Amino acid sequence: MDEFSLINSVKQPYYRQSSLLKGIGDDAAVFKERQDNIVIATDVFVEDIHFSQKTMSPEQVGYRALAVNLSDLAAMGAQPTFYMVAIVVPSKWKNKIKEIYEGMNKLALEYQIDLIGGDTVSGEQLTITITVIGSVFPNSVRYRSHAKASDIVFVTETLGDSRAGLHILQTGKNYIEAEYFIQRHRYPKARIKFAQSLTSIDRLALNDISDGIISEAAEIATESKVDIVIDESLIPISEHFYQFDKTLQRKWKLFGGEDFELLGVTSISNWEKIKKLSEKTKTKVTKVGYTENPESMDAPGKVYLEENGRRTLILDRGYTHLNEEGD
Amino acid sequence: MDEFSLINSVKQPYYRQSSLLKGIGDDAAVFKERQDNIVIATDVFVEDIHFSQKTMSPEQVGYRALAVNLSDLAAMGAQPTFYMVAIVVPSKWKNKIKEIYEGMNKLALEYQIDLIGGDTVSGEQLTITITVIGSVFPNSVRYRSHAKASDIVFVTETLGDSRAGLHILQTGKNYIEAEYFIQRHRYPKARIKFAQSLTSIDRLALNDISDGIISEAAEIATESKVDIVIDESLIPISEHFYQFDKTLQRKWKLFGGEDFELLGVTSISNWEKIKKLSEKTKTKVTKVGYTENPESMDAPGKVYLEENGRRTLILDRGYTHLNEEGD
Repeated sequence: MDEFSLINSVKQPYYRQSSLLKGIGDDAAVFKERQDNIVIATDVFVEDIHFSQKTMSPEQVGYRALAVNLSDLAAMGAQPTFYMVAIVVPSKWKNKIKEIYEGMNKLALEYQIDLIGGDTVSGEQLTITITVIGSVFPNSVRYRSHAKASDIVFVTETLGDSRAGLHILQTGKNYIEAEYFIQRHRYPKARIKFAQSLTSIDRLALNDISDGIISEAAEIATESKVDIVIDESLIPISEHFYQFDKTLQRKWKLFGGEDFELLGVTSISNWEKIKKLSEKTKTKVTKVGYTENPESMDAPGKVYLEENGRRTLILDRGYTHLNEEGD
Repeated sequence: MDEFSLINSVKQPYYRQSSLLKGIGDDAAVFKERQDNIVIATDVFVEDIHFSQKTMSPEQVGYRALAVNLSDLAAMGAQPTFYMVAIVVPSKWKNKIKEIYEGMNKLALEYQIDLIGGDTVSGEQLTITITVIGSVFPNSVRYRSHAKASDIVFVTETLGDSRAGLHILQTGKNYIEAEYFIQRHRYPKARIKFAQSLTSIDRLALNDISDGIISEAAEIATESKVDIVIDESLIPISEHFYQFDKTLQRKWKLFGGEDFELLGVTSISNWEKIKKLSEKTKTKVTKVGYTENPESMDAPGKVYLEENGRRTLILDRGYTHLNEEGD
């Protein structure tokens, strides 16, 4: 399939967003935005770094790549509207590109968002760069800098499951509820609807957990100039998470990442309201810690783990993609 | 340099655009836009497909990649405001990434635009995906569909120079004014200022010439449901273009592309005004053809070359990046 045929095959028969003025088919896309602020994020996914044909189908690769991007918008409190896809295609993937786009479209349909542009070139390594665009009410944008001392820290759903799913796929061993963990890895949920349900919350810092709770907490703590204390025993895990090796359990729930759950920091007075609102979107929320004034005003942003009254400073700032980590 | 250090090293000390609310340092960037429409485009550049270390320095690679994207905004009549960079870095390029960003920043400074986000991962092949954002007055957006029958067709500056520059770099032969052609290849100019100077023109279709004039004319003709006739002898070429092989000259000026000049189609009554306005930005404009009602209403979008009264239908729809062309 050449670029022209590909574009025609992925071009939507009609666009879902009324603010779109021009989609695919000109030098650029054009849209209007009169009320809200515009939110934009971009992420790149590379074969054998972020995903492997051994553990995911082309359709799953597409779904997951878009979900990861939408998760960034959820973490800003934004409503997604559009996305663009720039893709580098090695010859062995040529016949599977359409499936990748189908995976993305499956998710796009769920959120009624539109594919409005992109680029396609041949190359050596499958590389998918997605840019997502959304809108947010100026008063409910969720910056990392919105935390204050004496706030509570919470997370959505359970942590570590995605990494456990990858482990099952890579080892091929038998585990209880294996399919649950595999699905959590292949089809992460961007918590868009939950984040959207919180628009009435006056102050809230949000991060999506792409690199593990410790790393995300450090980002919020640094930007908000507080320290964060997390009670390890409160971190929510799924029913059958206990079956994995204890060292791996700990590693995955603290540093495993790729769960794309949300980490939130807000005032104690908002907590009951958030719990109530979370029921609307059937999203479990769990309080896991609190913030405090930084031990040192010169170096705020520390993250501590607290268990049985003992506090440990966690220095790990999490995975960065230029330094790969082992299993 | 790890991802964290890289982001810090490329992060601007301050942002130039007052509409920016949040740049690098959260899950996404946030900006406001109250008056104009928003224009967005993305392009991907892959080593040994779009550029080579043999012919360009890292700084030139960065400059050129951003220029190519800005050219898309020029072709929409938009004012650029922001850009985002997603980059896949093989180990041999690690120490040169900063230079790539410096090349982009050189151009960003010229247009006072801000780098507001991105992503960096390691991989096998240097891949730079740039997303550019701009704004445009609703009445002066320049769609491909804006041409009508009996319009005139014009181009900015001269065509074929970039391809000639690449030829000089690849062959290493001696040519008159070699440096001029090489500069045209390495530092293409996005015709932003020229396109911006035309805001008072009531109707105008614009395309930037990335894939050769024939291919771009076909896009405008197809979207506008007209046919386009180009007089080959009127296509503007630079002073010393005649020194190249005649077959190559013709190939480069018609199909060479990558000049990133603009191809415009507008009513005859606008032509004198455009010529006058073009002087403000010191941009040469040349009338090269005209439009007419399509020969077949079922298959509009034909492009003809006319020379010495003889008309030839050009079927070539130009280069698509999934089918590489030879020299």
